[in-house]
Amino acid sequence: MGGKAVGPGWVLTVDLPPPSLNNNTADADRLADALKQALPADAVCMDLPLIRALPQKLRKHHFRVRCVVFKGLNETVLTAVLDPEDPMPVAGLALDIGTTTIFMRLVDLEAQTLLREIAFSNPQGRIGPDVLTRILYAETDEGLFELNRLLMETLNRHINDLCAQCGIETHRIFLVSVAGNTAMTHLFLGLCPRHLIREPYIPAVNRIPLLFAGNLGLGLHPETRVYVFPNIGSYFGGDLFAGIFFSGLHEKDSLSLLVDVGTNAEVVLGTREWLMACAGAAGPALEGGVTRMGMPAGPGVIDKVTIDSKARRVSVRTIGNHPPKGICGSGLIDLAAQLFRAGMIDIQGKWIPAACGKRLVEQDGEWRFVLVPARETAGGGDLTLTQADLDSLMRSKAAMYTILETLTRAAGVSFEEIDAFYVAGTFGSVIDPESAITLGMLPDLPRDRFHVLGNSAIGGAVRVLFSREGTGRVAAIRDRTTYLELNVNPDFMNRFSAAKFIPHTDISRFPSVTIPSSPHPLASAPPEGAS
Amino acid sequence: MGGKAVGPGWVLTVDLPPPSLNNNTADADRLADALKQALPADAVCMDLPLIRALPQKLRKHHFRVRCVVFKGLNETVLTAVLDPEDPMPVAGLALDIGTTTIFMRLVDLEAQTLLREIAFSNPQGRIGPDVLTRILYAETDEGLFELNRLLMETLNRHINDLCAQCGIETHRIFLVSVAGNTAMTHLFLGLCPRHLIREPYIPAVNRIPLLFAGNLGLGLHPETRVYVFPNIGSYFGGDLFAGIFFSGLHEKDSLSLLVDVGTNAEVVLGTREWLMACAGAAGPALEGGVTRMGMPAGPGVIDKVTIDSKARRVSVRTIGNHPPKGICGSGLIDLAAQLFRAGMIDIQGKWIPAACGKRLVEQDGEWRFVLVPARETAGGGDLTLTQADLDSLMRSKAAMYTILETLTRAAGVSFEEIDAFYVAGTFGSVIDPESAITLGMLPDLPRDRFHVLGNSAIGGAVRVLFSREGTGRVAAIRDRTTYLELNVNPDFMNRFSAAKFIPHTDISRFPSVTIPSSPHPLASAPPEGAS
Repeated sequence: MGGKAVGPGWVLTVDLPPPSLNNNTADADRLADALKQALPADAVCMDLPLIRALPQKLRKHHFRVRCVVFKGLNETVLTAVLDPEDPMPVAGLALDIGTTTIFMRLVDLEAQTLLREIAFSNPQGRIGPDVLTRILYAETDEGLFELNRLLMETLNRHINDLCAQCGIETHRIFLVSVAGNTAMTHLFLGLCPRHLIREPYIPAVNRIPLLFAGNLGLGLHPETRVYVFPNIGSYFGGDLFAGIFFSGLHEKDSLSLLVDVGTNAEVVLGTREWLMACAGAAGPALEGGVTRMGMPAGPGVIDKVTIDSKARRVSVRTIGNHPPKGICGSGLIDLAAQLFRAGMIDIQGKWIPAACGKRLVEQDGEWRFVLVPARETAGGGDLTLTQADLDSLMRSKAAMYTILETLTRAAGVSFEEIDAFYVAGTFGSVIDPESAITLGMLPDLPRDRFHVLGNSAIGGAVRVLFSREGTGRVAAIRDRTTYLELNVNPDFMNRFSAAKFIPHTDISRFPSVTIPSSPHPLASAPPEGAS
Repeated sequence: MGGKAVGPGWVLTVDLPPPSLNNNTADADRLADALKQALPADAVCMDLPLIRALPQKLRKHHFRVRCVVFKGLNETVLTAVLDPEDPMPVAGLALDIGTTTIFMRLVDLEAQTLLREIAFSNPQGRIGPDVLTRILYAETDEGLFELNRLLMETLNRHINDLCAQCGIETHRIFLVSVAGNTAMTHLFLGLCPRHLIREPYIPAVNRIPLLFAGNLGLGLHPETRVYVFPNIGSYFGGDLFAGIFFSGLHEKDSLSLLVDVGTNAEVVLGTREWLMACAGAAGPALEGGVTRMGMPAGPGVIDKVTIDSKARRVSVRTIGNHPPKGICGSGLIDLAAQLFRAGMIDIQGKWIPAACGKRLVEQDGEWRFVLVPARETAGGGDLTLTQADLDSLMRSKAAMYTILETLTRAAGVSFEEIDAFYVAGTFGSVIDPESAITLGMLPDLPRDRFHVLGNSAIGGAVRVLFSREGTGRVAAIRDRTTYLELNVNPDFMNRFSAAKFIPHTDISRFPSVTIPSSPHPLASAPPEGAS
């Protein structure tokens, strides 16, 4: 019995001993037994269509086959039995379904390489840009159906494109992993999200079973298995568990913290022994949802800003060095930090007109800072920042810091004890911790403790497609994560108020941040007409 | 957390604690956790359609719901969530798919009672009466499809009738269990059976996963789960495991034997510690497949025959006391035993014309024994038995005894050590062990050791629908059953030849059987014209 089975991750090539009178178990049982031994697994399940095709396949390939397996909540399943000599890649698809942007990576499950990736706007944005609008829209069956259909159609179109670009057919995708926040996960699964926003904020499901692509409306082989990362509640979803798994935080002896910066700030703190998480609204400023020039990272989007403190000359860097068309979250953080360092905004984040000079112009009855003049932009209009934009950013950064402070205090640890500080988020290309610390958004720790992960959710989604331990690890992470409810924390509002200064009312917390010398008192008065 | 869950078998009414800020797990997880605790089970899976409907159902019924669960090979699944006050029964369907006859029982899963039952011919008989013809027919995809479709259409028609008679809708059937021999199981599942009849005789699958009615073509709710009893090989199938489970043989300290009498004789011997099984062809005589008057048990079918030894007056009993229309297997055994006791057939099973008298008539060039004259039958023709019929029965009874002898010898035990001797089979209403012993078909043991089970396969199929341990027990029975290959046993043919006498060439084995005094030598010569 037994046989040999070799291969990385979820793709194994199995050599079965051919049946004989002395070894005459059934085809399906023979294959399941060999896989159980090789993986190892307590049991390997397979579905009826696969069993129906098995006798012929095994004999055609002389009892040597390439198997694609996967593991859900409890069971290990055999999802495909393939010709061992077929040169076409055995593909997998990783999805990060963000409220604003969806990331998709097509990977080779056997070579464990990226084939191609793409990012595109979540089409549900047409119904409503934010989660709340969509949840309210999904309260009727028709609304839920429409949101789900919009998503599936767009996913299917991009899956087709991605496969066509790689020269493979969509039925070569055998495994799919999906990371999304709790609301996006519900809309992807066609689950009514209405109770997510009503006390006591109950998801339909936290631990999601392994699903069939055919039951979800995905245009893949109907037997393709779809793994969806679990939630822990309405505000801590699969994208975070994917991120934790990607960071490796759950495997470390020393204390680590992972913060996912976006419209919601989600934070997890812990070691291999314990994990504590919380999440809170940080406002849309960091995802380009408020500033007129804000947008997700992409070609032509400003992701870095430098202002020299003496001449106050402003220079910007764009993704791909295209003419600038907008600014992403990390660019905005850079911009605000640079404005502060150059003495152009004060500790409350208010313009200092004297320092801003001609860049501060009046337009439509409000003062705007011209970051890039019209003649240099892609769209032909000024790229500007208003006081309202700055105020919004100040609230976001204060919320972020307060969430970090509240979680660490609740866990009984200080920022200084955090050995590794992972910063994730799709709000920008790469956040600069220096700028975030200058603003007082992240704590003032030695810079080498910061690790910028970028989109950790899609990273984790890819990793579960490559690692045999992945889905089990994620389940274990979920089950030992303690979720801290911020709504019920009485100190939260006081901390938030104290954090609404640059870097903080208590500047002793930010010893490495230089506070620019106070400008002439008159210069800090707002120009006439500014709100 | 937790909640209360009460109920027999697979139907549990669960009272969940309503969600609160301090107990805010998801709906699906809340229900799964309560069921895990109540059953108990390591995990409880549920499918997407059920999760989709769950939030509304739980709230509508104030977190008190009736749940239908089931257990497959490894996983426990939640298959339905119902209104706890709905007065309609929660139904289950048990099927015994025999080569000749199909038995169907509709049961109430909660009350654990029989609602209604039915037996009907396997419609695949139109393609071929025997297993081999059907397997050959199923070698093409079209042939397999046709056999499967024939079966499903007939099953669906009878399911509809059964439900209509009970006043319930077919979607109230939540669980199905199916027992059949290996070939019938393959045809039910749409699996090509071609390798079952070719050395080394390999089934497509032995351990069958829990299936969806919707994937099988059964006209039930598509999410209804279907449990199919496992095989151990080509010749020992799910009907036998259902029978073993029904007999309880696998739980006894003392030695038991179960024999299922039919076209194939399947035997299992053992205790709670070990199980040894074998199967062999017994010929169609016992299932009414050879004798012209043979037929499955049913109204008007002769199931008991008495011949008084002196006057040689023949009297028959029919099922339901209807005018006789044929004879079933148990009636045939009775008839042969009575003929032997009355000195009307000899120890080789040949007619003794002098003793038979006027009942032996010539018709179409052969001698026939008129069991019931035309004027007394339902069909208006004589019910007769030919020498060829008797010869066929002799081969069947000899095969049966030889199989029993070979298995007990292989296990190193004697017949006398067998404490309980279970006789199952659908070949007749109730076999009379006395008659079977007289013929030398069953060993000459004290009569109180015999337990006639009737159709043990349908009994086992019902029992897995009622018992939470059922499917797990059956899997355990399967995994510890050692299968003995009769084809390779060198003594089989010698034993078979010795058993082709009534009761046996070695009459010392049957001390309780009286051999009638030899009739006049002339009387035993066959009448002229008889073959």
